[in-house]
This record gives sequence, C-alpha cells and structure tokens, in this order.
Amino acid sequence: MRYPDAIDKLIEALRKYPGVGRKTAERFALYTVNRLNDEAIDEIVDAYLRIKEDIFKCPICGNITDTDPCYICKDQSRDKSTIIVIEEAKDLIVMEKTNKYHGLYHVLNGAISPSDGIGPEDINIKGLLVRLKDETIKEVILATNLSNEGETTAQYISRLLQDSTILVTRIAHGIPAGGNIEYADEITISKALEGRRKL
Amino acid sequence: MRYPDAIDKLIEALRKYPGVGRKTAERFALYTVNRLNDEAIDEIVDAYLRIKEDIFKCPICGNITDTDPCYICKDQSRDKSTIIVIEEAKDLIVMEKTNKYHGLYHVLNGAISPSDGIGPEDINIKGLLVRLKDETIKEVILATNLSNEGETTAQYISRLLQDSTILVTRIAHGIPAGGNIEYADEITISKALEGRRKL
Repeated sequence: MRYPDAIDKLIEALRKYPGVGRKTAERFALYTVNRLNDEAIDEIVDAYLRIKEDIFKCPICGNITDTDPCYICKDQSRDKSTIIVIEEAKDLIVMEKTNKYHGLYHVLNGAISPSDGIGPEDINIKGLLVRLKDETIKEVILATNLSNEGETTAQYISRLLQDSTILVTRIAHGIPAGGNIEYADEITISKALEGRRKL
Repeated sequence: MRYPDAIDKLIEALRKYPGVGRKTAERFALYTVNRLNDEAIDEIVDAYLRIKEDIFKCPICGNITDTDPCYICKDQSRDKSTIIVIEEAKDLIVMEKTNKYHGLYHVLNGAISPSDGIGPEDINIKGLLVRLKDETIKEVILATNLSNEGETTAQYISRLLQDSTILVTRIAHGIPAGGNIEYADEITISKALEGRRKL
C-alpha cells in the first residue's frame, strides 16, 4: 500500500526544501497530480532547467546573476568607493529598494556558523579580500544579519581588516535582533544605513 | 532592480502551490540556486516529468495510479461488495494503513463546494453511479471529511441512492469535525469504520 513510484519520487524531491516535511511535500505532490495540467508542470520544469542553464554567481561580487558581471558590478554609474557586505542575494534586493545606496555589494552567500560546520573559507570572504586590494575602495559596510552567525561573520571580517586603511563599518541597529534583513521594511533599512558606526 | 528572469520564473511557478506565498516561493527559488546542485535539480525535473508521463486516474475508482486499473481495483482478493467513497487518494492511503478494510474504494477527487464553484458534476460522482449498477455492490460507505463540503457531498450521494437497494452508510464520528481524514490516526479511523451508521 503506497503511492505510485513517480509520486513518491516527487515527494522525496520536494522534501529537500527548508521547512518542507513529509506532509507538506505530499500535499504539493498531490496538488501537482490533481490540480496542475501538463502546461503548468512544463512551466515548473522549464523554470528549473533555466535555473541550471542561466544562473551563476557574479565572479566579482557573488550576487546571483544571468549576466557576467551582474547588473550592479557592470553599472558604471555606481559609487566604486563603498562595498556593502551581505549574506544573501535577497538582502541586496531589499537594500536596493531603499534607493538610499548607490555603491557596490559583496554577497557572502552564507555566514560563519561553526555549529553548521560553516567556516570563513566556506563563504565568499576570500573574494572580498581580493576586491579590497583595489585602492578605490574606501569603506566596507558590514550588513550581515543581527544573528549569532551574522555578528560572528562581521566581527571576523572587521578583524581581518583592522590593519588596513579601509573604513570598516557595521550597519546600524534598527533591524530587530534575530530578525533577517529580508523581512525588514525599507525605512528601517534606510535608518540602519544612515546610522552605521565605525568598528 | 530585480532577480534574473529565470529566478522570477521559478518563483512564479512555485507560487502555484497552496499556502506558498511570494516570500516562501522566493526562499525556495534561492535555496534552489544556492544549495541545490545540478544533480538535485535534475531529480526534481525528472520527478515532475514522470508525474506527467506515468500518473493518471484509475478509470474504475478514480484513484491516482500508474497501472490500469489501480492496485486496489485489480486485486482479486478484495471484497467486491463494499465501496468506501473518499475525497482524495491520500485518504485511501490512510484507510489502508488500518488493515481493517478489504473492500473497494471510490475517489471523488474533490468535494461539493458551491462557494468554490465545485458542483456534483465537477467531482467523480457519475463514475460511482456507473459502478453501482453492478449488483455485487451491497454497501457504500461515505467517508468524505466531516467538513461542510464533505457533509454536503455525503448528503448529496445518499439522496441519489435513497431509492436503491444498496445500503448507504456514513463513516462514524470519531474523526474531529473540521479535521481532515489524512491527519487522523489509525485507531480513530478504525473506530470510525466500526461505528458507521445507516443514513
């Protein structure tokens, strides 16, 4: 007594996603069978295939992109003297929504988390150090989340740069501790940017 | 300022699922980009393609299946005199887990819900009436959920059969009202089966 093999396979595949347990994956799979027509399934399949084909990390900043370099790095009108360091590409999207910042970004694609076995070498810090050799960069704004991982990562990077001439700042409080940047509203993020302090 | 097109496409595709809003779809899409390798994405794609290719509704009972007829309908050892009517194939899975029932099933693939514009003709009731012309069937057990839709559907079917010689019963209380059969434990479902009453 079980589901047809194809349904079990889809359930197992969808369980890969964070917060998706057996019951949820089962509901998604049965919804696919009962409510999605072939056209809708093709849309999903094409979307996944395009992710595989088109998407990569920007070799300069680590942002997820389908152009080399990404639309931020190739934008000549941006202020090349400042880099905001963020954990995920989605944080960049929220930052840009504020229209308060016109510099560059560096996406770590993660944060230091010893408990998850994620060390400094597992996130995009080396790429940041390479960029900082360029003397046009005057300030690094650390905008990792106000979580243990984000704070640890900010402290680690600021220590790496303590002997350099680059101004290292931390995004201001204003974003509630434990909260993620992606959920913060634009005013809160604007205030956090304005209130940044030297570490 | 936006995500690459391929990511927007995946976000839109995943939003088709019940309970998946913009933020959740975004999280799934970025997880796909940041954490799933090509192999993992291929598994998901293959699973969707197999759903399209292998899965269909059993022409006899409406169960989702990859064999014609489904493994229940083709099992000669099952008691052909009783049919349990359920809303979804997942309810059949839970019923079978009890090992208390060895008859047949009829999967409506939905329930009557005027507010959602779902009428009797939109679910698999016509197929049930065709099956009931076979005189070997002595009892129909209505095991739709104890929700408004499930109750309406049960009442509708029992009215259709009130002049027939077939015994029409309703699964017993025991499953909490408003709850769905898929979440009930096996003992509760066994009790509900034992306590069924004539309508």
